[in-house]
Amino acid sequence: VRDLLPTLLAWRAAGEPFVLATVVATDGGGPRELGAAMAVRMAGGVPGEVVGSVSGGCVEAAVIEAAAEVVADGHPRLETYGLEDSDAVGLTCGGSLAVFIEPGAAATAHLDRVDEAVERGAGAVAVTVIAGPPELLGLHHGDVLRANGYAALADAVARDADALVDVGESAVRRYGLDGCPEPAGAGAVGAEPWDSPGTDTDTDTVTVFFNVLAAPPRLIILGALDYAASLATVGRFLGYRVTVCDARPVFATAERFPSAHDVVVAWPHKYLAATSIDARTAICVLTHDPKFDVPALEVALRSAAGYVGAMGSRRTCEDRERRLREAGITDHELERLSAPIGLDLGASTPAETAVSIAAELVAARRRGSGEPLRRTSGRIHR
Amino acid sequence: VRDLLPTLLAWRAAGEPFVLATVVATDGGGPRELGAAMAVRMAGGVPGEVVGSVSGGCVEAAVIEAAAEVVADGHPRLETYGLEDSDAVGLTCGGSLAVFIEPGAAATAHLDRVDEAVERGAGAVAVTVIAGPPELLGLHHGDVLRANGYAALADAVARDADALVDVGESAVRRYGLDGCPEPAGAGAVGAEPWDSPGTDTDTDTVTVFFNVLAAPPRLIILGALDYAASLATVGRFLGYRVTVCDARPVFATAERFPSAHDVVVAWPHKYLAATSIDARTAICVLTHDPKFDVPALEVALRSAAGYVGAMGSRRTCEDRERRLREAGITDHELERLSAPIGLDLGASTPAETAVSIAAELVAARRRGSGEPLRRTSGRIHR
Repeated sequence: VRDLLPTLLAWRAAGEPFVLATVVATDGGGPRELGAAMAVRMAGGVPGEVVGSVSGGCVEAAVIEAAAEVVADGHPRLETYGLEDSDAVGLTCGGSLAVFIEPGAAATAHLDRVDEAVERGAGAVAVTVIAGPPELLGLHHGDVLRANGYAALADAVARDADALVDVGESAVRRYGLDGCPEPAGAGAVGAEPWDSPGTDTDTDTVTVFFNVLAAPPRLIILGALDYAASLATVGRFLGYRVTVCDARPVFATAERFPSAHDVVVAWPHKYLAATSIDARTAICVLTHDPKFDVPALEVALRSAAGYVGAMGSRRTCEDRERRLREAGITDHELERLSAPIGLDLGASTPAETAVSIAAELVAARRRGSGEPLRRTSGRIHR
Repeated sequence: VRDLLPTLLAWRAAGEPFVLATVVATDGGGPRELGAAMAVRMAGGVPGEVVGSVSGGCVEAAVIEAAAEVVADGHPRLETYGLEDSDAVGLTCGGSLAVFIEPGAAATAHLDRVDEAVERGAGAVAVTVIAGPPELLGLHHGDVLRANGYAALADAVARDADALVDVGESAVRRYGLDGCPEPAGAGAVGAEPWDSPGTDTDTDTVTVFFNVLAAPPRLIILGALDYAASLATVGRFLGYRVTVCDARPVFATAERFPSAHDVVVAWPHKYLAATSIDARTAICVLTHDPKFDVPALEVALRSAAGYVGAMGSRRTCEDRERRLREAGITDHELERLSAPIGLDLGASTPAETAVSIAAELVAARRRGSGEPLRRTSGRIHR
């Protein structure tokens, strides 16, 4: 939708009514990703110019028809298109698609702010109420929810918005009016919440689309061991874009790391020095060989990475700390290093070790303590 | 191999030499699972009776040939059979297979004890050194390692043996002589450690096969929400046999829970009362609806389950605790309940919540504290 923004702003400046249509769910076989958008400019009450697309051509005609109705009655609506509608629109490419269609002016004001955040390099999320009580439908702002007495719901939406930006993932979530999460529905997990019986007329729940405009965070794993394969699997599950890097071509192969998005044969410190690292990036050094570890950690601890951890026995960690100090790493820089990596779970198998590291990654980005929740008294989510 | 034991004991009682051959690795396309075994009785120096099988018929002839040599020279050996050997043995069913072939007497004495443990209902593991220095090859007992000055290696093997029994998984692991884990090799992760360059003649590392004779532990998830799907995924990754149970047929479907081994439509408390639960079983109650929670927890907290946790806000948990007390649950029984479920990671997304619960499951079975390892000073593995 960011591509469309200049056009939408121009249309708004010209004072012409228009409609924005956004893909809020696909069933996986669908042709476009969540957040794909098109806009339709109305000229003299009939559809004129169209920019963008929601399906690569299969359902655009139907969306344009619905757009005319949205302009006519001023109410946003949620439409679902699928193979079962083949008489009407023929989604011959397969799958089904849900599209939220709303008057352009409100959407644009909101997107304007989202665009600013993305420009600044911060991740951003466009939040839209796509189903629920009529007075909430089409809302983009938690403040309005709050002003209308739905403070707990506004809090829950804000929290999920932050969390989804952190993982770089768009999603649909359903809540009770009190902000409690509701099951997303009876279809595939996470898909088509409105398929749940009664949702169309259900005014006790609110369905929200979070359109995240941010790349997923990176997990960079140095050292192509078995532990790396397990960590890559859990890291991907947590929403990271996972890279495994090792200098040894015999270990760093795509076959050994099916869960990694990228497998790189390179000296870890050279790779780190050349790749893009930001505050959401996590770097896990699993090599526990000073030849690789020390130069890599010198780069990692001076990078923008939000998390740096290194595996090794207590003795390895002490020895490595000494070498890092000799290499000029300061106390302040060392304070950033999680070593031995992971939470103290008593982990033994590679899978358990991966969970221990994953738990530390989550605790780091969400500021958790790692203590059992039953022994704490604060908030559960952050 | 347990099926073969009565025959092996009879052969041993008769004083006849025999050979045991055990599958210690397959490449996934292989026809039999890890631990599949056959035994060959020698009669007058030539192979006689054969029981069991390692491949469904493709490589048995080659194993019998190797067995004769093992009896002749008394040395155990590791043989690999694959498609590339098609001239020799023709594993026409595809894949490759590694088989450890050893004199029967030593193996049987060991298996006898393993069998006893399994009979008692305890999981058990047969440990065999399948590659490494000649004096260690074929060893089954950590005590012998220890007596020969390899105490750290014996500790590491014992620890991994316990961990693998807990997850019910056979595996091959490679160690340095000091017990430090070594990468398992250059092939697929976890497969064919002896493919690593130089391993055949490598006397600095020891490869151990852990033949686990125990069912995987069970993870029973009550409540077919999105959170359950994420927890099922991580639970399976940790080695659990995962069951999702919910009374509502529209939610409890196999499609919604691709990671679950079983999806059951039933009232949770009735399901729990009727299913098999042991000390390795973990029960996670995610419904957070007193109608389902309270009766299910009444059964769970009085079962043999090693872990019982329940999801919910602080208020839900207090309310539930009150209802459980009213239902006659004692302080002692309540003390077993982890609620709110999970470690305090500040988890927000379903995946993060699943990691928080998985971390608590690992910490419970390994007695970890959940604290960052960098803030603790004790042992990393338990």
